[in-house]
Amino acid sequence: MALTLKSVEMKKDGAFNRQKNQFSIPFGEEVGELPVEAGRYRLLWSPVCPWAHRAIIVRKLLGLEDVISVGTADPIRPNLPRTDWAFTLDEGEIDPVLKIHYISEVYYNADPNYTGRPTVPAVVDIKTKKIVNNDYFRLTNYLETAWKKYHKKGAPDLYPESLRDEIDKLNDIIFRDLNNGVYRAGFAQSQVAYEEAYDTIFNRLDELEKRLAEQRYLFGRQITDSDVRLYVTLARFDVAYYNGFRVNRNRLVEFPNLWGYARDLYQTAGFGETTDFDSIKKHYHLSTIQGNRYGILPKGPDIKVWNTKHGREKIGQ
Amino acid sequence: MALTLKSVEMKKDGAFNRQKNQFSIPFGEEVGELPVEAGRYRLLWSPVCPWAHRAIIVRKLLGLEDVISVGTADPIRPNLPRTDWAFTLDEGEIDPVLKIHYISEVYYNADPNYTGRPTVPAVVDIKTKKIVNNDYFRLTNYLETAWKKYHKKGAPDLYPESLRDEIDKLNDIIFRDLNNGVYRAGFAQSQVAYEEAYDTIFNRLDELEKRLAEQRYLFGRQITDSDVRLYVTLARFDVAYYNGFRVNRNRLVEFPNLWGYARDLYQTAGFGETTDFDSIKKHYHLSTIQGNRYGILPKGPDIKVWNTKHGREKIGQ
Repeated sequence: MALTLKSVEMKKDGAFNRQKNQFSIPFGEEVGELPVEAGRYRLLWSPVCPWAHRAIIVRKLLGLEDVISVGTADPIRPNLPRTDWAFTLDEGEIDPVLKIHYISEVYYNADPNYTGRPTVPAVVDIKTKKIVNNDYFRLTNYLETAWKKYHKKGAPDLYPESLRDEIDKLNDIIFRDLNNGVYRAGFAQSQVAYEEAYDTIFNRLDELEKRLAEQRYLFGRQITDSDVRLYVTLARFDVAYYNGFRVNRNRLVEFPNLWGYARDLYQTAGFGETTDFDSIKKHYHLSTIQGNRYGILPKGPDIKVWNTKHGREKIGQ
Repeated sequence: MALTLKSVEMKKDGAFNRQKNQFSIPFGEEVGELPVEAGRYRLLWSPVCPWAHRAIIVRKLLGLEDVISVGTADPIRPNLPRTDWAFTLDEGEIDPVLKIHYISEVYYNADPNYTGRPTVPAVVDIKTKKIVNNDYFRLTNYLETAWKKYHKKGAPDLYPESLRDEIDKLNDIIFRDLNNGVYRAGFAQSQVAYEEAYDTIFNRLDELEKRLAEQRYLFGRQITDSDVRLYVTLARFDVAYYNGFRVNRNRLVEFPNLWGYARDLYQTAGFGETTDFDSIKKHYHLSTIQGNRYGILPKGPDIKVWNTKHGREKIGQ
C-alpha cells in the first residue's frame, strides 16, 4: 500500500516535486477571505502527517480546541481507488460530524474535477461539507493572526509582529531543507536527487545544531511558529525518516542540542500529547515507504527516551 | 535485483530457514577427507558476505595467503538465470585462475543436479574446477587446525584446544542469535517471526555488551575464532542491517563496549583491511534488500568513526 506518486509530482531528473495546494484563500476580515467564526469549521488531520501536526499543535498552544473541531484520519492510507485518507478510526468508519468515509469527499464537494492528491490538513466548512483551505504552509499563521480574537487568555504569541520577517525567512528554509527535504530524499528516483537532498538536510541540521547551542528556541526564550515547524520533522526523524527515507548520516539523538531541544518541546503542553509515535511508524513504514512487501513494522527505536531530562531550561538565561 | 528466496528457505510461519550446505567434507589427513595441500585450492568470496569474510580474516591472521589463493566476486549479485555470484570485477569478467564467469559453474562441475543457492565461501580444487567445500560454519576451524603446518611463524592460536568446547558453544550462539539472526529479522515474512529475531538479537547483544566490559576479547586477552565470527556481523550492523533488516533498537555505536571492541578488531591487521564498507553497503541495499525500486544507495552512516580511538588495550590487564 505504498503511496503512488503521480508523474506530475516527479521531475525528469528523479527529484520529488510536491504538488501545489489548490485551496489557499486566507482567513480574515476582508472581502473574499474566509470568515473567522467559532464552530464553523472542522480541521481534518492525521497524527502521522507533519503538515497537519503543526496546525494541531498551534491549535492547542493557542487554546482553539473549542473553536475549531478536529477529525482524525487513519494512519494507514488506502490507495484504491485513489491515495486517500480514511475515517476508519471512527464508529461506522465515518467522521461523526461531516459523515464522510474519505477525505476526498470534501475535495470533490468543493471541486468535482479535483485531480490532486487529497491532503491533510484540510479545513472544512461544516455546513457545506466543502474543503475551504488546505494551505499547510500558511495555516498556522492564520491561526496565529486572523484567529486571534479566539485565543485563550495568556496564549503565547507564536508569530510576533517584530519577528515576522525573520520567522517567514526561517520557515522557508525549514520547509525547503527539512520538512520537505526529507521527502525529497525519500521519494527521489535518482541517486543524484537523493544525495542532493541528503546533503541539504544534514548541512541544515548542523547549522541549527549550532544555533541552538546558545539559545533555548530558534528565536531565543520564546516558542515561535518556526519551532513548531522544526519540531514536527524532528519528531519523525529517528522513527521514520532515518530508516525509511535513507537520511542516515546521524540520528536525531546524536545531535546534543537538537535532541535536547526536541525533547524540551515534546515535554511542553501541546507537543508531546499530539505526537503519536506508533501511528507515525505505522504510516511511514506500512503505507508511505515503498517495497515493504510483507508489511513488517520495525520494532525500534525506543521512544521512551523522549521523556528523559534535557536541561534546556537553563540555556540562554 | 533483490535476492529471490526459494520457498524451501521459508517456513510456513514466515520465518527464514537458511539452506544446509551440501559440500561439507572436512579437510584433514584421514581417508575420505580433503587433502591439505598448498596451492591446490582457490577460496572464492565476496567482501560483502559475512560467512566468507571470516574465512578471509582467518586466512590473513594465520598467514595462509600464499597457501590458498582467493577469487573475489562482485558485491552486486545477478539474479538471472539464478541468484549467483559473478566475477565481473576481473578482467574479461572471468576469474583469472578458474576461468569462470559465475560461481555456480564450480557447483555444477561438482554436481550437475545442484539445486541450492550457490554460496560463498567456496573452496574450489583448481585442477578439477569443482567446489570441494562450502561449509561456512566449519571452514575457519579447518584453517585453524588441519592447515596448521602452513601457518606463519608466530601465528595466533585462534582455536586453542583448552577452549574448544567453550568456543564451539559460543559460536553456536553467535551463529543462531546474531550471524544468522539478522537475516532472520531481515527476511522474515511475518511480524511475529521478525520480532522474535529482533528480540533475540538485542538480548544477545546486551549480554555480550556486559561480557566485554571486563575483558578485551570474548575469551580474555587473546583473539579467538569466536571474535572473528562476532566481528563480521558487527561490521555490517550500522551500514546495512540496522536500516535494511530493521534491527533498529540501537545502532552498534550506541553500545560502548561492543563498539570499542569492534573498532579494536577493525584496527587489528587482518580485520580492517578485509572490511570493505562500500561493497557491503552496495550489496545489501542494492542487491539483497527487497523493494529498493530506484536503486538508491544510502549515503550514511559515516564510516570514518571506525578509525577513532577505542582504549580497549587497557581492559582486563
